[in-house]
Amino acid sequence: MQRWKITIEYDGTQFFGWQKQPDAVCVQQILEEAIAEFSREKIDVSGSGRTDTGVHAFGQVAHFDMEREMEPYQVIDAVNHCLGPYEIAIVAAEKVDDEFHARFSATQRGYIYKILNRRSPSPIYKNRVWNFINPLDESLMQEAADLLIGKHDFSSFRASGCQAESPLKTIDEIKMTRDGEFVFMHISAKSFMYHQVRNIIGTLVLVGDGSMTLDEFKEIFESLDRKKAGITAPPGGLYFNEIKY
Amino acid sequence: MQRWKITIEYDGTQFFGWQKQPDAVCVQQILEEAIAEFSREKIDVSGSGRTDTGVHAFGQVAHFDMEREMEPYQVIDAVNHCLGPYEIAIVAAEKVDDEFHARFSATQRGYIYKILNRRSPSPIYKNRVWNFINPLDESLMQEAADLLIGKHDFSSFRASGCQAESPLKTIDEIKMTRDGEFVFMHISAKSFMYHQVRNIIGTLVLVGDGSMTLDEFKEIFESLDRKKAGITAPPGGLYFNEIKY
Repeated sequence: MQRWKITIEYDGTQFFGWQKQPDAVCVQQILEEAIAEFSREKIDVSGSGRTDTGVHAFGQVAHFDMEREMEPYQVIDAVNHCLGPYEIAIVAAEKVDDEFHARFSATQRGYIYKILNRRSPSPIYKNRVWNFINPLDESLMQEAADLLIGKHDFSSFRASGCQAESPLKTIDEIKMTRDGEFVFMHISAKSFMYHQVRNIIGTLVLVGDGSMTLDEFKEIFESLDRKKAGITAPPGGLYFNEIKY
Repeated sequence: MQRWKITIEYDGTQFFGWQKQPDAVCVQQILEEAIAEFSREKIDVSGSGRTDTGVHAFGQVAHFDMEREMEPYQVIDAVNHCLGPYEIAIVAAEKVDDEFHARFSATQRGYIYKILNRRSPSPIYKNRVWNFINPLDESLMQEAADLLIGKHDFSSFRASGCQAESPLKTIDEIKMTRDGEFVFMHISAKSFMYHQVRNIIGTLVLVGDGSMTLDEFKEIFESLDRKKAGITAPPGGLYFNEIKY
């Protein structure tokens, strides 16, 4: 029996998120079926974290155990072949020892949030960005984001359905950048709460378009009141980018 | 009567190209119908050039004449509203004088060709890039591309169905760049022949992956024989990017 670590890219648009559930097409289940198809074994795929409907991944990581002996490139090609019609692909595979756990061994998770900052919608980036119309000042957004770095109570950015035991989380980095009409947020932490990234960017844009001052942002963050903060940004702009072990 | 210049983005995947034709969904016709819908006039939209099925545009330019008086932002919003379900959007609109002609006034046309250079397919960039597996040396591709700059007979890169009177064309610039797993070709000229850009990149990759030497590339270019050159690269990697007037 060999434990495998795989890195997965997917277009979240067509799936009911990562986590398998009855009567819904989810990434985890499709992967399990694809690996079972060529290995002829029952396969359990365990991911580093869930993603919601519409949220994409460049670098989701998962592990599974398989009896059949194969080389990494064979696993990549076989899984991708069996994934056939689905918008999921394996971009890397490696043999790891039995202690490796995609979720519990992770030391840092990185997301990218992509905004297309212009009046017109984009056919080419449809479901791939948040089309935000008001002009954004990304340096102001950076100033607000800097207030979130470190260990804090993130109740203001916590979804009502969040099941985390504690609202205390430690954000390692938030980097706001602009490339022409695109504004990107790179954010990383050991772990995030449900909707935390989308709730953070949903409030940062209010600072960025001038409808909220830095002081007001700070006040909302410290109020620990989700109702005072901005909307949950749409899922299509969010990419689960990189997980460190 | 006012002449309008519009800049158009579209995802070419779902369309039978730009040019309207019977019994096929084409960008030109959908634009004409969208503008007719809010102006209640019969509208003829004239583009700067055709694109094939699957070829995208960030900056296709077209012109049309309209009686109804409107401001540019109103035209943008009205057209985009009426384009509703289609993967087409107007990104700019401006009033121009009657001499302006989207096709004949153009002084330079710029395309981008995007290659994703890796073994695994990409769900997120599906139909947006050419997934080329063999590792590419983009500096070798640049050396080959440099041979094409200037006025030459491009018969080796001319599609069999091309109706241009002469195979003589002048390429102003080809710039090969790499960004991680992506390789980009920026190419510009006053005008191109049918499939010329896709035929050029389809042969440049053979230099890039080492299966053709620079001397062989030069020989093929000078042979004026389409059969000796590489394949026509897939349409999904090609973007009509910018037109100068």
